[in-house]
Amino acid sequence: MKRHTIEFRVRYQETDRMGVVYYANYLVWFEVARTEFFRAAGLDYRELEEKDNVFLPVAKASCRYRSPIGYDDPVSLSVILSMVGKARIIFEYEVASRGSIRATGQTVHTFVNADGVPIPVPSNVREVLLREA
Amino acid sequence: MKRHTIEFRVRYQETDRMGVVYYANYLVWFEVARTEFFRAAGLDYRELEEKDNVFLPVAKASCRYRSPIGYDDPVSLSVILSMVGKARIIFEYEVASRGSIRATGQTVHTFVNADGVPIPVPSNVREVLLREA
Amino acid sequence: MKRHTIEFRVRYQETDRMGVVYYANYLVWFEVARTEFFRAAGLDYRELEEKDNVFLPVAKASCRYRSPIGYDDPVSLSVILSMVGKARIIFEYEVASRGSIRATGQTVHTFVNADGVPIPVPSNVREVLLREA
Amino acid sequence: MKRHTIEFRVRYQETDRMGVVYYANYLVWFEVARTEFFRAAGLDYRELEEKDNVFLPVAKASCRYRSPIGYDDPVSLSVILSMVGKARIIFEYEVASRGSIRATGQTVHTFVNADGVPIPVPSNVREVLLREA
Repeated sequence: MKRHTIEFRVRYQETDRMGVVYYANYLVWFEVARTEFFRAAGLDYRELEEKDNVFLPVAKASCRYRSPIGYDDPVSLSVILSMVGKARIIFEYEVASRGSIRATGQTVHTFVNADGVPIPVPSNVREVLLREA
Repeated sequence: MKRHTIEFRVRYQETDRMGVVYYANYLVWFEVARTEFFRAAGLDYRELEEKDNVFLPVAKASCRYRSPIGYDDPVSLSVILSMVGKARIIFEYEVASRGSIRATGQTVHTFVNADGVPIPVPSNVREVLLREA
Repeated sequence: MKRHTIEFRVRYQETDRMGVVYYANYLVWFEVARTEFFRAAGLDYRELEEKDNVFLPVAKASCRYRSPIGYDDPVSLSVILSMVGKARIIFEYEVASRGSIRATGQTVHTFVNADGVPIPVPSNVREVLLREA
Repeated sequence: MKRHTIEFRVRYQETDRMGVVYYANYLVWFEVARTEFFRAAGLDYRELEEKDNVFLPVAKASCRYRSPIGYDDPVSLSVILSMVGKARIIFEYEVASRGSIRATGQTVHTFVNADGVPIPVPSNVREVLLREA
């Protein structure tokens, strides 16, 4: 199991009139964390798309919101690779701020080629993801 | 069980470089549909917040993506009130475009007052939501 | 001079913790209005991109904010084609709500092909845009 | 004149189907840069709102787009305080990536209290902003 953590602050734009982060933005943060997870694992996700024509659309996403986060709050987001299958992978997320978990989430990804046709997890991706940390 | 459907077109801003709607935007659409659901049921959600000091934060949100939707595609989004409990309500969503279901989702909402303290579903809200269509 | 007006309501997501619409979202609305402007003029902007390989990137955008707009407020946004040149076109915008102008804006667009190379305004586009209403 | 620079990478969400950053997102970045500008100057913008009840709505925003920026590109955004008046301040922005300026922008801000009533630039803010670097 691999884990990567990113740190950032909440943007004003990410809040709504309730004064806290709008719920859809957690999924945006998940995506930012995935990019950095891949980079830390030695995979450039942009190159994966542009050179290998491999795309990882989201098949399922979910988030459980425990307590809100406000503007400019420091956020620590951990992404954990929890499953690498033949045709899909699963990430789990933990969103923390000021010492407490504020939300948890999960995304399930399939692999498709440039035409949107499902493909198995490419061997080079699989190898990197399963490599011992 | 109550259902309300909204129709709209995909904004350019809602797409990403994969050429289709970015996954977090489905949750934004769910919110737009909820506002219209409440209006159709006779409840002004803005007034609920501003006059009654009742807020419906999202406790859990999930979405299953079946097939992508592109820029300017017409979208038909149905929101269904699937559960009205003592302290929370659940909505289900069906996102369709050009005759096929593209995604389904669910949001679970609690009720809180202006201080963020959980409260039971207010009786006037409960009554409206349980009223026969 | 051609004008087209769209009507919509403010999304919860479009507000920020100041309780009103976040300033960048006016530019998103401008884009929605442009798509509808083209459709009303008989041009499908998506086809322009996908079939003619013609793109209209924004070269300059500006917005003057007079008074804020809140969640669920009805918005009436007029887009006016104010200039059609050899290589660029200019749109002006008026954002109104509840009877008063809340903001005005302008976008300047160039035309580029699929490789991002600047091209003159295509003759079929020019013709449609200059046609008498 | 004071300048502050932030560094970040483009989020997937910030791109659109043209494959590059959607134009409204530059204004979101400007806002992120302003928050960090204030912090570097010794002012906590969140406290300004929450403790002093001072808000800086945007009165005017503009952006000139020179060349596009893609997903995951490193961005270096400089914000320059270019004018501190009696009732408003002006920021200029330079957005660079991979060694070239991609966009420049400007925002004009007024000061209002919690009721949205215009107020002069508070003396403590004025002092900090005019302090020699």
